[in-house]
Amino acid sequence: VSFQNATTATQDHDGRWTGEIHDGWDIGGNANGGYLLAVTGRAMAMAADQPDVATITAHFLRPGPAGQVSIQTEIAKQGRRFSTVQATMSREKSILTSLGAFTDHAANPDDRSFMSQNAPDWGDPLDQPRIEGTDTFPPPIVDRVDVRLHPDDNFYLGPSGVPRMRGWIRLLDDEPWDSIGLLLASDVFPPTIFNADFGVAWVPTIELTVHVRNRPAPGWLRCEFTSRFVTGGFVEEDGLMWDSDGALVAQSRQISLLPRPQS
Amino acid sequence: VSFQNATTATQDHDGRWTGEIHDGWDIGGNANGGYLLAVTGRAMAMAADQPDVATITAHFLRPGPAGQVSIQTEIAKQGRRFSTVQATMSREKSILTSLGAFTDHAANPDDRSFMSQNAPDWGDPLDQPRIEGTDTFPPPIVDRVDVRLHPDDNFYLGPSGVPRMRGWIRLLDDEPWDSIGLLLASDVFPPTIFNADFGVAWVPTIELTVHVRNRPAPGWLRCEFTSRFVTGGFVEEDGLMWDSDGALVAQSRQISLLPRPQS
Repeated sequence: VSFQNATTATQDHDGRWTGEIHDGWDIGGNANGGYLLAVTGRAMAMAADQPDVATITAHFLRPGPAGQVSIQTEIAKQGRRFSTVQATMSREKSILTSLGAFTDHAANPDDRSFMSQNAPDWGDPLDQPRIEGTDTFPPPIVDRVDVRLHPDDNFYLGPSGVPRMRGWIRLLDDEPWDSIGLLLASDVFPPTIFNADFGVAWVPTIELTVHVRNRPAPGWLRCEFTSRFVTGGFVEEDGLMWDSDGALVAQSRQISLLPRPQS
Repeated sequence: VSFQNATTATQDHDGRWTGEIHDGWDIGGNANGGYLLAVTGRAMAMAADQPDVATITAHFLRPGPAGQVSIQTEIAKQGRRFSTVQATMSREKSILTSLGAFTDHAANPDDRSFMSQNAPDWGDPLDQPRIEGTDTFPPPIVDRVDVRLHPDDNFYLGPSGVPRMRGWIRLLDDEPWDSIGLLLASDVFPPTIFNADFGVAWVPTIELTVHVRNRPAPGWLRCEFTSRFVTGGFVEEDGLMWDSDGALVAQSRQISLLPRPQS
């Protein structure tokens, strides 16, 4: 099943969609948050009648095991350049609730730009091992994509000590990216804190926001996730995503709960 | 009118509030986005029955001139530690739609922390001139708070060339901050790009997300806003807010449209 097919819901009637959380996009039986947002976001983009995400926010309410879900969408405002949509994915109870603005990035002006940094050059991703999924750890979802870690951030070989996770990701079978794919990419890499001193345990995300800045070219994305502050039991994770042409395609930020120490 | 009173809505019935956009919190007749989010967010926190914001996102749909508004809140999930609420502020049409999670920061653990940077020391805010509001520029809202700019970022004396805006803010009459006040603080400083080469014009915000990391102490907040990327007609603005005790109290990010060149 392609990523496109694994994230496409069908419209039952205005504002009501039936989707499916496909098997294998999970971490210990519950679908990855970026994948859940991609399923929801694709229905939202269709409701908005726009091809691209401008910005989307998800709040993760309950785990999402594989199976059928319903998605309710409501247009908050249909504008010329942006359409704003609210959505909730549920199965009996709410799994995820989202708010997003959708646009057509091909029609947005790109005559003035300022880049404080350019796309990083970390060498060839094929020089790094592909992370392979297991039933537990690494989780099944990494088999649905091709993820390679920057050699200095490969915590499987030992944590770097820096709460940062850099690497590459591509879809399988050379499937091209679209802006919905960036929602997946924003949440598939291992948590930054696996490279720091906070233990390797499930990190529950409260909220994730992704700004899509350009429509991504096919091929490898270069991604960098960094955490700067752990306080009040929270940790944020900031992401930058660059496409194979070196364009900045997305910025992400999520706020998560720090895992409690294992007793 | 205190900030507290200028942002408190009254409950009509379950999930329905009457609020007021008070006069003077505006930029050219339309209320500041951070102020609108504070009014909406305070109703959401009351609906959630939690004292603090954990994370809140606003999409700005239409301008908000002074006057009465209605706020509809809906609980997406009432949990033990977090309650998630959707809300829309409207007057005939929707002005702002929001999604947030609320908590009690006093009950959150603070036994483990990691800070990549400490609160900055920029000297004494009283050594810098207070920005005073006018009918147009600077806008009226700066008279409702006490804002001082870092001397290197005071674009009124000439742009620095760096898309950054640092400074201090306090409420009037020593009114203490609460976590709702941080929503205001996240959007009151002049846009970062006034210090760069993109012209001084209204910068329409599409989306603003604020993560409140600790409940703020009374007194001056130190705030730093930075933009790293202008692309596709968008500019993001990342904020850090520190309280008078030197605690990190909030992180913010907004995505805005770059103003079009004046013809």
